[in-house]
Amino acid sequence: MSDRFRVRLAYDGTMFHGSQFQSELRTVQGELEGTLRKIGWQEKSVLFAGRTDTGVHAAGQVIAFDLDWGHTEEELGKALNAVLPEDISAVKVQRTKPDFHPRYDALARKYHYQILSSPVRDPLQERYQWRVWPDLDVKMMNKAARTLVGRHDFAALGSPHQQGGSTVRNIIQAAWRKKENKLVFEIVGNAFLYHMVRKVVMSLVKIGQGQEPVDSIKKVLDNPSGPKAQGLAPARGLSLIEVTYQD
Amino acid sequence: MSDRFRVRLAYDGTMFHGSQFQSELRTVQGELEGTLRKIGWQEKSVLFAGRTDTGVHAAGQVIAFDLDWGHTEEELGKALNAVLPEDISAVKVQRTKPDFHPRYDALARKYHYQILSSPVRDPLQERYQWRVWPDLDVKMMNKAARTLVGRHDFAALGSPHQQGGSTVRNIIQAAWRKKENKLVFEIVGNAFLYHMVRKVVMSLVKIGQGQEPVDSIKKVLDNPSGPKAQGLAPARGLSLIEVTYQD
Repeated sequence: MSDRFRVRLAYDGTMFHGSQFQSELRTVQGELEGTLRKIGWQEKSVLFAGRTDTGVHAAGQVIAFDLDWGHTEEELGKALNAVLPEDISAVKVQRTKPDFHPRYDALARKYHYQILSSPVRDPLQERYQWRVWPDLDVKMMNKAARTLVGRHDFAALGSPHQQGGSTVRNIIQAAWRKKENKLVFEIVGNAFLYHMVRKVVMSLVKIGQGQEPVDSIKKVLDNPSGPKAQGLAPARGLSLIEVTYQD
Repeated sequence: MSDRFRVRLAYDGTMFHGSQFQSELRTVQGELEGTLRKIGWQEKSVLFAGRTDTGVHAAGQVIAFDLDWGHTEEELGKALNAVLPEDISAVKVQRTKPDFHPRYDALARKYHYQILSSPVRDPLQERYQWRVWPDLDVKMMNKAARTLVGRHDFAALGSPHQQGGSTVRNIIQAAWRKKENKLVFEIVGNAFLYHMVRKVVMSLVKIGQGQEPVDSIKKVLDNPSGPKAQGLAPARGLSLIEVTYQD
């Protein structure tokens, strides 16, 4: 008799070709499904809340799968962590309702993007941040970030995961804060287009360095069928922090 | 006309066989000397403030070398960082007096050791901390750590770098503090024996987990020619943070 399990996953994305399964390549889904098969799982595939690109990290990815498991949730967590490679961990394991779907049921996603604004790289943070220089005007970046909040057509700042899909998204929060010597951008939205966070960050960094005016993001949002925003912040700075559900 | 330069170095120790040159192996000194030769350096070797083992990191290693360089210190920093691999960086470059010696002139060294006390690993911090479980009694660990402060013979907690060398060291500070979900041990001393910080950390963790009584470190210090402290905390948690000089 199988139950549906919901698992919060953390991973260092550096050595993965993204979250989504690709044959012959090391992916989070591939490693996870391989691990589950070792403990008796026989389904076809695991469900993910969101897709992360090559090099993108997660502290709070959410996945679901059905498994015939006669023990506790804690014991399943231990079994998974014993088999998973060092760059993935099952942070929390819960039995959930049989129709729980981590993507369709998600109400919101929170991402962080970390920047080191410095002329010199920090080798101890290199995997988890983008280093930029000249220095950034954070006030300007936050002014521009506020224009992202609300319901907008983000067609010029990303592409839908399915061709022809809606490009309207609802952004609940978007702000930069200082954390030690770093800048952390926190963005929360109902969902995100493909590459959307990294395009937004690149646009904000251009504003912070004075290469683009502070209203450049507003212009892009006002004209979704106009020219696409150029450039993409590096994957290494991005982490999926949390996915929120009704419960 | 050559000047002596003093450089503050940061590195991620994960992919190095320690700081000290070893032929055929990737070391910090080897990479650094290779970089210096590309910009015209012709001396035999670079001087280091302290030796770090395989896997040990540094935010503030200090090195010195003589170089005929007709430009500014900032330009030398840029030249070094352009050639150095991504896991090393020259944080600060200064011209210094011709007889400056980073090891002999050092007044104190500060190390940090990071621990994650959790049943589940954090893949995003795995390279920089040691995960331990069951949970630690930090109060007990700090009580024991206080007995380290002062001038003691640490012969049972490490070995001298040169055979027959003194095993007396002066510890100025030794305490654990919480930092987000981590525990950070900060220890400052005039100098340290080989493996000393990692042996101290292992002894303190045993106390924190109730495997050893809180006075076990004091007993080891009171009897330097007695049995050696057993065990060594993993290298990955350790970083050389700062080396202090007269100026």
